[in-house]
Amino acid sequence: MRVRLDLAYDGTDFAGWAAQPGLRTVQGELERVLGVAVGRTEGAPPRLVVAGRTDAGVHASGQVAHVDLTPPQLAALTRRHGGEGDVATVAGRLTGLLNEAGDVVVHTTAVAPAGFDARFSAVFRRYRYRIADRLPARDPLERRRTLWSPRPLDEARMRAAAAGVLGLHDFAAYCRPRPGATTIRELQAFEWNRDDRGVLVAEVRADAFCHSMVRALVGASMAVGVGRLEPHRMGALLADRERSNAFAVAPAAGLTLVEVGYPADDALAAQAAQARARRSL
Amino acid sequence: MRVRLDLAYDGTDFAGWAAQPGLRTVQGELERVLGVAVGRTEGAPPRLVVAGRTDAGVHASGQVAHVDLTPPQLAALTRRHGGEGDVATVAGRLTGLLNEAGDVVVHTTAVAPAGFDARFSAVFRRYRYRIADRLPARDPLERRRTLWSPRPLDEARMRAAAAGVLGLHDFAAYCRPRPGATTIRELQAFEWNRDDRGVLVAEVRADAFCHSMVRALVGASMAVGVGRLEPHRMGALLADRERSNAFAVAPAAGLTLVEVGYPADDALAAQAAQARARRSL
Repeated sequence: MRVRLDLAYDGTDFAGWAAQPGLRTVQGELERVLGVAVGRTEGAPPRLVVAGRTDAGVHASGQVAHVDLTPPQLAALTRRHGGEGDVATVAGRLTGLLNEAGDVVVHTTAVAPAGFDARFSAVFRRYRYRIADRLPARDPLERRRTLWSPRPLDEARMRAAAAGVLGLHDFAAYCRPRPGATTIRELQAFEWNRDDRGVLVAEVRADAFCHSMVRALVGASMAVGVGRLEPHRMGALLADRERSNAFAVAPAAGLTLVEVGYPADDALAAQAAQARARRSL
Repeated sequence: MRVRLDLAYDGTDFAGWAAQPGLRTVQGELERVLGVAVGRTEGAPPRLVVAGRTDAGVHASGQVAHVDLTPPQLAALTRRHGGEGDVATVAGRLTGLLNEAGDVVVHTTAVAPAGFDARFSAVFRRYRYRIADRLPARDPLERRRTLWSPRPLDEARMRAAAAGVLGLHDFAAYCRPRPGATTIRELQAFEWNRDDRGVLVAEVRADAFCHSMVRALVGASMAVGVGRLEPHRMGALLADRERSNAFAVAPAAGLTLVEVGYPADDALAAQAAQARARRSL
């Protein structure tokens, strides 16, 4: 039985999503409380598969994961004996077990439709990056998810530059490479706008992102915004076969995974098969 | 020379606005850095007067204060010798000196118009209280300014109750009393609505608030929302001459001072004189 989890976290005090021995990670915390909740019932310890493996300090408001459970494990989770219980109640139970700090919340849990895979069925990921580059835009209550830039940024230049990297490209210049994995991605949206307070907000959408790609795109944009890089250079850098040193990767704190998109239920399995094939060279 | 400061803070790690020996307070931090910035120039140590003396843990996005400075102090603050310099630059200087934590930001500083008094010239204070009473409304990144209620609240009952306390009343039932101070206030607005995420948000506006009044009004509303108090009782309680025990005062973390209203410049002095006379019995 596969269960879909929709969740959110404040990444500030986590060493990222992926479980690592001795470090506090979102996956580690979730798998720990899942283990506690299923107890010694029959089945392997529950393991999560996630849509977006966020780095240390990166936040999520719309993260999606799945976990495969045996019927006895699901019964233990829903506190019903001899039956399945209501999967929707698992979200509240896990959130209650997670921590006092309140920095992870499981919003909903549901039985996943056939063919659903949190990672490979996804057709897009949408991230947001927030920069307060002027004093009145600095909100102490938003500081955990906002980068405070000491220099004002020119958003017109940043918009022009962003247009040059849209579409299907090899993003090697904007990725930390992983052996055996392609860096070809489709950047579907990359827009800079100011909100009511003057905070500069990027919306960045792609079929998938390679490692640190959003933060590299934002770092290059900031170099453009302060005048250190010409707007046309952002697109031109795509010709490089490795990560450029023309810009610095932007800090994690400004970044939030806000949405993961999936196709209609009858296309989930085909999408997963296609993505698996595409992602490995 | 009187200077107006507009500022914001995350109240979580402060023992409130008002300076207290040995405790970290917003006023204490601001007066400390003002003292550092003016150095040993002629004049008494700068002291702040504030529009809303927030309690420990209460936040502000639109706080207003003033400080009286001698010309040499102002020159020292604006880093100009033998002149006044640009008062607007003081906001950035103070914010830079305040702290690494980033939990206080001075957004703007300006020469105050004649007759301006941050406290007594104000014609209204507007507060916001946020409650997430359902799992999907719990946002880890908003948890510092949002109360998480384990019980769902009925906002229709809360709205009906709020209407019963609007207007000019003696709010002794909703105040922690202070000797020699009136508890008569004009509650100009008190509305409950749900935002896009389902967070229940109160907007509360009055000419001024007596001590812990907003949190008492919210606490009573929550008692109404869970069915422990009938809606009409909220207005009826106004007849009590002292703080009611029919409800608990709501926690500080959900509360933010969002706006302080002032009249046109030519009415500032008259408003200040009138408020001073009205506030003392």
